[in-house]
Amino acid sequence: MGTQGPNHPQEGAASGSSGAEVEDNSLLIKAVQEEDIPKIQRLLERGADVNVSDEWGWTPLLNAVQRGRGDIVELLLRQGADPRQKKRNGATPFIVAGITGDVELLKRFLPEDVNECDCNGFTAFMEAAGQGHVEALRFLHASGAEVNLSRKTQEGQKRLKKGGATALMDAAEQGHVDVVRILLEEMGADAKARDNMGRNALIHGLQSSSDGNVEDLTRLLLDHGAEVNVRGEKGKTPLILAVEKKHLGLVQMLLEQKDIEINDTDREGRTALLVAVESRQKDIVQLLCRKEASLDCGDLIMIAKRNYDQPLLRILRLCGAKEYFHPPSEDWEPQSSRWGPALKKLHRIYRPRIADVVKIFIDEEYKIADTSEGGVYLGFYGEQEVAVKLFSEDSRQAQREVACLQKCREHSGLVTFYGAESGKGCLYVCVALWEQTLEECLHGRRGEAVDDQEDTFARNVLSSIFRAVHELHVLHEYTHQDLQPQNILIDSKNGVCLADFDQSIKWAGDPEEMKKDLEALGRLVLYVVERGEIPFEKLMAQSSEEVVQLAPHEEVKDLICHLFCPGENVKGCLGDLLGHPFFWSWENRYRILRDVGNESDIKCRRVESELLQRLQPGPFEPSRSFEEWTDKKRCGEMHAGRPTGQTKPIDTDVLKDMNRYYKNNGKFYQKTVGDLLKFIRNMGEHINDKKNEWVAMANISTISWQLSAHGSNLYAQIKQTQVLGAKELA
Amino acid sequence: MGTQGPNHPQEGAASGSSGAEVEDNSLLIKAVQEEDIPKIQRLLERGADVNVSDEWGWTPLLNAVQRGRGDIVELLLRQGADPRQKKRNGATPFIVAGITGDVELLKRFLPEDVNECDCNGFTAFMEAAGQGHVEALRFLHASGAEVNLSRKTQEGQKRLKKGGATALMDAAEQGHVDVVRILLEEMGADAKARDNMGRNALIHGLQSSSDGNVEDLTRLLLDHGAEVNVRGEKGKTPLILAVEKKHLGLVQMLLEQKDIEINDTDREGRTALLVAVESRQKDIVQLLCRKEASLDCGDLIMIAKRNYDQPLLRILRLCGAKEYFHPPSEDWEPQSSRWGPALKKLHRIYRPRIADVVKIFIDEEYKIADTSEGGVYLGFYGEQEVAVKLFSEDSRQAQREVACLQKCREHSGLVTFYGAESGKGCLYVCVALWEQTLEECLHGRRGEAVDDQEDTFARNVLSSIFRAVHELHVLHEYTHQDLQPQNILIDSKNGVCLADFDQSIKWAGDPEEMKKDLEALGRLVLYVVERGEIPFEKLMAQSSEEVVQLAPHEEVKDLICHLFCPGENVKGCLGDLLGHPFFWSWENRYRILRDVGNESDIKCRRVESELLQRLQPGPFEPSRSFEEWTDKKRCGEMHAGRPTGQTKPIDTDVLKDMNRYYKNNGKFYQKTVGDLLKFIRNMGEHINDKKNEWVAMANISTISWQLSAHGSNLYAQIKQTQVLGAKELA
Repeated sequence: MGTQGPNHPQEGAASGSSGAEVEDNSLLIKAVQEEDIPKIQRLLERGADVNVSDEWGWTPLLNAVQRGRGDIVELLLRQGADPRQKKRNGATPFIVAGITGDVELLKRFLPEDVNECDCNGFTAFMEAAGQGHVEALRFLHASGAEVNLSRKTQEGQKRLKKGGATALMDAAEQGHVDVVRILLEEMGADAKARDNMGRNALIHGLQSSSDGNVEDLTRLLLDHGAEVNVRGEKGKTPLILAVEKKHLGLVQMLLEQKDIEINDTDREGRTALLVAVESRQKDIVQLLCRKEASLDCGDLIMIAKRNYDQPLLRILRLCGAKEYFHPPSEDWEPQSSRWGPALKKLHRIYRPRIADVVKIFIDEEYKIADTSEGGVYLGFYGEQEVAVKLFSEDSRQAQREVACLQKCREHSGLVTFYGAESGKGCLYVCVALWEQTLEECLHGRRGEAVDDQEDTFARNVLSSIFRAVHELHVLHEYTHQDLQPQNILIDSKNGVCLADFDQSIKWAGDPEEMKKDLEALGRLVLYVVERGEIPFEKLMAQSSEEVVQLAPHEEVKDLICHLFCPGENVKGCLGDLLGHPFFWSWENRYRILRDVGNESDIKCRRVESELLQRLQPGPFEPSRSFEEWTDKKRCGEMHAGRPTGQTKPIDTDVLKDMNRYYKNNGKFYQKTVGDLLKFIRNMGEHINDKKNEWVAMANISTISWQLSAHGSNLYAQIKQTQVLGAKELA
Repeated sequence: MGTQGPNHPQEGAASGSSGAEVEDNSLLIKAVQEEDIPKIQRLLERGADVNVSDEWGWTPLLNAVQRGRGDIVELLLRQGADPRQKKRNGATPFIVAGITGDVELLKRFLPEDVNECDCNGFTAFMEAAGQGHVEALRFLHASGAEVNLSRKTQEGQKRLKKGGATALMDAAEQGHVDVVRILLEEMGADAKARDNMGRNALIHGLQSSSDGNVEDLTRLLLDHGAEVNVRGEKGKTPLILAVEKKHLGLVQMLLEQKDIEINDTDREGRTALLVAVESRQKDIVQLLCRKEASLDCGDLIMIAKRNYDQPLLRILRLCGAKEYFHPPSEDWEPQSSRWGPALKKLHRIYRPRIADVVKIFIDEEYKIADTSEGGVYLGFYGEQEVAVKLFSEDSRQAQREVACLQKCREHSGLVTFYGAESGKGCLYVCVALWEQTLEECLHGRRGEAVDDQEDTFARNVLSSIFRAVHELHVLHEYTHQDLQPQNILIDSKNGVCLADFDQSIKWAGDPEEMKKDLEALGRLVLYVVERGEIPFEKLMAQSSEEVVQLAPHEEVKDLICHLFCPGENVKGCLGDLLGHPFFWSWENRYRILRDVGNESDIKCRRVESELLQRLQPGPFEPSRSFEEWTDKKRCGEMHAGRPTGQTKPIDTDVLKDMNRYYKNNGKFYQKTVGDLLKFIRNMGEHINDKKNEWVAMANISTISWQLSAHGSNLYAQIKQTQVLGAKELA
């Protein structure tokens, strides 16, 4: 019972606890990997489990086989190692010996069924073929291994058309010409066999990356009857693969096959000739044309012209290739209306795609915006129209942008991220294309009268922005750091999202980073409410106090103040502020005022009640214009079509009519806040059938707006008294 | 003035209309491209514009230069062609002659400034070098072309670090060894020059795809002093690029440079040795080790072991490479709680990435679900945990799935799409990982009592599903075709999204396709309301009528009926149904009932009013249980904790107390719907301060639920009478 921790095992100490046993077991595996026989013996003597396995199922015995150490294998077997114990993928010591090509070990472990296989259907024979172990292959063949066995795989894999390959395909894929020759000439391997995807050994050989002796290999397979019109990945034929390899000899050899289909296309509709023209293989083009490949397989002339390849052009013209003067008119229609015409053009013209997916043309005609690096351009990601933001490949800003976009992909308030592709030292960040920025949108709306109607535009836009920033802060713990009207996108239905994350920071807890976003939001509130009349740059240059002073009324002022001084809970601040009266609909305000007016304290003018006390202005508070609601002379008029700090008075006729109900007891409406609320309540409860016209005449909506505009405070008081119980306010 | 249309020009006819002129102009360009001198002459005689240009700025003259037809060039110049007119990209006839390498034409157009360049900074000299035109290069050099001029590009491009390349780099990139030799040995080209990305000609040569004579090229450049420790794309050094080319000779040559930094890494931290081990280049590994490359650059032994590469293992061990037994413990934490442990393991283990981005292990341990093709597995897309759906590469289902996901990427009600990558004949579709399917979620909630509280769960889940399907139908014009509880995902906060689009169809107008989705939704409504108690497969096997009969109450029945019989406007149906009373909160129902009760017709029991007439049951309508609201005996009890078709009665004490107000005139509450509404109104308006307790006692919420549950009809009637004016109902 030693005192050693697990990291400092004293091998000499007697093992007793199970922790030490576990430690010894893993030490045993390590000792075998280090081929340290004395240590292996010591550990086994001390009671380590000879059949222990790691998470992949590797036992000491399997490790010894992998290292080709027959002596250690014998030692372990003597100590009771199980020769049938498998790796997690089902490989036995026998199969592992096939991988390493150790004939002695193959003999030692030769099972009853020489064709035993692992979970993916690999036999020792296939492994030896794939690894190019000629001696092992011959031994296994002599031991009765089935040469043309195809891999049986699990059901799920089979549904994916995986499996079915043979030893010949494995040898071809790895470019072992010697093994392929032995398999074909000595062992009777079938060159016509296909795997579950329909590929034969020829395709396996041509698809492989090792080019060394692909010509010999192809010749061998063709001589043994391999079918030449098969298809591999992406529907490519051997001929197309040979052209892609730019291998004239191989192309020639394939073309000599009597039943070759020279015009077969891959899944994208490309023929061997088209591929040859695209990759400027003059000799191969000439050969294919001589063999009468169809010239009607794409705009060959145009492709050669784009490359200014005069020699190729001459060959193509001599063969009779024609230029397409009238590309087929296309019926593709863009989704974006603003960018539609430019997108249609970009869709029509040829551009080589970056990373095979991004189509873009760096040209003023397609520019969306300038940036500090390379600008934002219209583009296509596959067939989807997108905005492409350019960066240089090693840009720090690009890293920030992509990290944030990737992390917040599921966030609906952020611009949708399509992908970031790199090419030629640049990074192309593709995001959804939006109609305009908030700045452009407000520019278009400038001068639009904001009358005494609800400003639902500002409310909707700002609540979307608040929600998006809130999610960014809370769900993803990122801060934007560059919130401004050019970085907020807006569509034709006033849908809003955030963009441009090249300054964004993963939040590590510093409240200042979040405060920076909140301060920018404070300025955005004013910017949106004022319809962009004050340039955002100007607002950013002003102090918090100056910005607050510019607020058109109390409610906006209160909202901005909360953003500038978010208190302790910086992270939750926006969530709370989404309940601010600024975001209430007028309908809701009216409802709440009516409910308050329905409180019996107010209906009965119970002066001593806490509620009415709270509604009185404090001795040091400035007077509030709506308190003069009964007094025509004292109430201000609307200013330039929008509510000012002053309230429009109640229509005299309406007030007179309402006072009529009290003619018996003389309790007419007084110019107090309480009576104003009572008045609103009575208008609603008793005059409901005439409500719509009366409310308009009585300016109820302006007044209720004024009440709430004036007082987030007033609402807070009403909330505090809890008279509204469990009712949700917002 | 011929009568010919634009498509049938009669060349002989005199041209007059501007349409015919335009036609002649484009015919002129075509005639030059076809090198048809008589036709060119005819068109010019007829008044075609000799300086016309196509959308890329190609004039007849530029076309003639590109084709190297000096005779046509002379003809056009005689007819007034402008020799200074440029292509849109700024290329002059002189620069185009540089591309084609035509010395005669270069002489003909030789400008004052032989270094004139196009918009991207290309000069004729650079073009001739890049295209490998030795004679043109010599002529231009003799004419004073600046050999080491670097490309000046536009501001935006420069910010991306584009531009700055020289003629030498162009020649190296294209593999023109002869040109590179002439530039270096005869013209004094600077082998040390760098472009704006910091790459020299050596990098340009090694990055290029043409491998033919890269050894000669490299030797030439090194001999002329090219710096060897530079970096190209992705921070790769010449040494790393040479290893990637598997070119032993090249590696050797670079290692002989006295100041070579053998251990420099690329931007991903990989050294030349690591790259060599990964690509199993035994000879290069041996060479690098002999030159004492650091072995501390990754788990080299493990990489070789994974490949069962015994020879490489032996070399590495001989050189002293060590195995890492304790991989650094990682602090990565998964986002998913359900899949967390499996994700942690998958994150830790090594898996080769598909298309460099998708990490996946096809193993039961990581399986999320079975599919008809290959199943859904846990995986990583980059560093983001995702669900990976497997398909075979040519699968029709995969095409449907990906088409829909790509098209609807910006749709927040669909599972977020990360990307579809192909490899080894399979397609890996990566989408956001969700905690569970709707089926699993309900399975977990089965038996949970749904008492007389609002069933907000069903309301929220179903409204999310309705909204998502509605957007799919209306915004994207796709139909899902396979809506079922396994294909709807739900997170721990009851957020919902649609998944599995492998049956989806782009909608072409056939209402039956949408109806199929609506019918499935009808069954889903019942499935969710019943908490999955009835298996969905069973519901799918039943007729519409049978499903409707299973609805627990009138409201659900009405909703389902609307889904089964959507009427004419199939596409807008879901948008309308989102306003169905099923989706109203109880608070809202109560509000509306109170507003109706506040109508003077009801308050004053104006029996002849249209409203009250409508509220009476028709002669053939079944009686409605809430009509017995005053009668304790007639009202049913709750059944098994949830509301039945029966209403709980109003508390007798409450009713008595409320009737107290009418003791003077004896107008007590009657058992009519109108009086029930009046009662609800009076409870709200007059007993507001005790509302919370009283409302509970009076069962107002159950009753208002009953009222609305019973009658989407009743609500429809109330709506029709328009008593609520412009007020929004929902």
